[in-house]
Amino acid sequence: VIAVLSGGVGAARLLRALRTATDAREVTAIVNVGDDLVMHGLTICPDLDTITYTLAGLNNEELGWGLAGETWRVMDELTAIGGEAWFRLGDRDLATHLYRSQRIGRGAAKSDVATEVARRLGVVERLLPVSDDELRTVLATPEGELSFQEYFVRRRHDVEVSAVRFVGADRARPAPGVLDAIRCARRIVIAPSNPLISIDPILAVPGVRDAVAARRDDVVAVSPIIGGRALKGPADRLLRELGHEASCVGVARHYLEIAGRIVIDEADAASAPAIERLGVRASVTTTVMGDAANDARLAKDVMA
Amino acid sequence: VIAVLSGGVGAARLLRALRTATDAREVTAIVNVGDDLVMHGLTICPDLDTITYTLAGLNNEELGWGLAGETWRVMDELTAIGGEAWFRLGDRDLATHLYRSQRIGRGAAKSDVATEVARRLGVVERLLPVSDDELRTVLATPEGELSFQEYFVRRRHDVEVSAVRFVGADRARPAPGVLDAIRCARRIVIAPSNPLISIDPILAVPGVRDAVAARRDDVVAVSPIIGGRALKGPADRLLRELGHEASCVGVARHYLEIAGRIVIDEADAASAPAIERLGVRASVTTTVMGDAANDARLAKDVMA
Repeated sequence: VIAVLSGGVGAARLLRALRTATDAREVTAIVNVGDDLVMHGLTICPDLDTITYTLAGLNNEELGWGLAGETWRVMDELTAIGGEAWFRLGDRDLATHLYRSQRIGRGAAKSDVATEVARRLGVVERLLPVSDDELRTVLATPEGELSFQEYFVRRRHDVEVSAVRFVGADRARPAPGVLDAIRCARRIVIAPSNPLISIDPILAVPGVRDAVAARRDDVVAVSPIIGGRALKGPADRLLRELGHEASCVGVARHYLEIAGRIVIDEADAASAPAIERLGVRASVTTTVMGDAANDARLAKDVMA
Repeated sequence: VIAVLSGGVGAARLLRALRTATDAREVTAIVNVGDDLVMHGLTICPDLDTITYTLAGLNNEELGWGLAGETWRVMDELTAIGGEAWFRLGDRDLATHLYRSQRIGRGAAKSDVATEVARRLGVVERLLPVSDDELRTVLATPEGELSFQEYFVRRRHDVEVSAVRFVGADRARPAPGVLDAIRCARRIVIAPSNPLISIDPILAVPGVRDAVAARRDDVVAVSPIIGGRALKGPADRLLRELGHEASCVGVARHYLEIAGRIVIDEADAASAPAIERLGVRASVTTTVMGDAANDARLAKDVMA
């Protein structure tokens, strides 16, 4: 087993890249659920769906989220009748949420549904929401507490964050298979996702951080920060606002107790010694994904 | 106030016809909720929506249900991923259900949402679900108990029914405005909807039957049975299966305690004396709607 702690887009790309270096059937993604929301009565799992769609080859490359060939009939009509449409749900995407909500309404667990949808779309990797229980990432801002999607989508992460908490995390149980995957993995990968709002909620589920820490020598993180900046999203700004260093060194320090190695970008090669001094091995490669050769190189280094 | 006890299609057509004989702002439809369902996490109110769409001029005349110019992107995709798609929800229609479910999730009542959607679509009549509480029509069949939509849509009402019950009716409260509308109406109309599964659930809400019965002289029912047959749906078959006479006389008898008059079709003119002998006045006119002249004639007779 290769266990990959996963947020959304960055993790989806890494998981896809890993196919060049390992058998996809061996890979288990342990996916953040702190971004999940109930909207219009529907249970929506944005990180999980991004990964599912990307691994199924159905992701919308232009938008960077959602499905290729998407249409917006329902949202257009919802706007017309005065509904809340800031969280855009495409027509094809909605089918996933209807399916999930129906199954959950009948007593299925989120992790069961994740498996069903992945299989139906031809995804070979095992996709596991870290927990079937409620766990909500909430951000403290000058405008009050915002849910993850209010912060990320509605406010386009253009608001100062003074604290992050994971509501429900203390009572959440790891989904079936999560701890076993971590314990038995020959490699554990922390995807280049936002450490504070994509990976930390995974680690906040009781038992997960300890299980990962116990495997520290086999844990490798891929830095989501290159040259002090996030390729996408607010990771750099959030790291600064929450008292961390917005650099690959800051990321290595954040994961100090759980990751024995970090993969950093060539642009950050000069930071390798500082990371090694923390007691973390540093591998230098290209961490920008999207190009087949780069993807293969990164995957090989992660699996090395 | 003109209060109209309403099921779906037949009621929608009668309400539209009534515009030729009275000010639409005066009309309050009191709508069956026994067909309502939660599916895919969405709260769906088929009778209410049929009325809303018809009065907004948005109904699909070919299908006989749903919206004109409808598309099926979500359902097609839901089918593709193995979801339950026997209850067809069009893309435009889904927007209504998303809107309603979001509002209800935030604490709004079904009746509030009915008003909001109606206003937004330009419907002038007041549309009131008979109750904001749960009330589910359940039919006993050789296949076991079926929900209304399982019976009506999934089994195309092609199954024997031995009993009907309205689960939750004893605890349901009339929605705000329902009893007042009945008490203050200068006319109460029972639409040509299925007496046993569209009108009876309305009357089953505690207080409603008594309020209607107290106004018996001002209550007029329009027979949904013409020449022993229902124009649409299983009303004739159900009447027989449940021990009633499948005729306008049977309908008059069913409503004996609450309706002082019944409007029957010319095809049933010969039944008028039998109805009068029950102590119910009978008006004879054309009850088949769809043609402007017929609609106006029926509306005039109902309002006479």
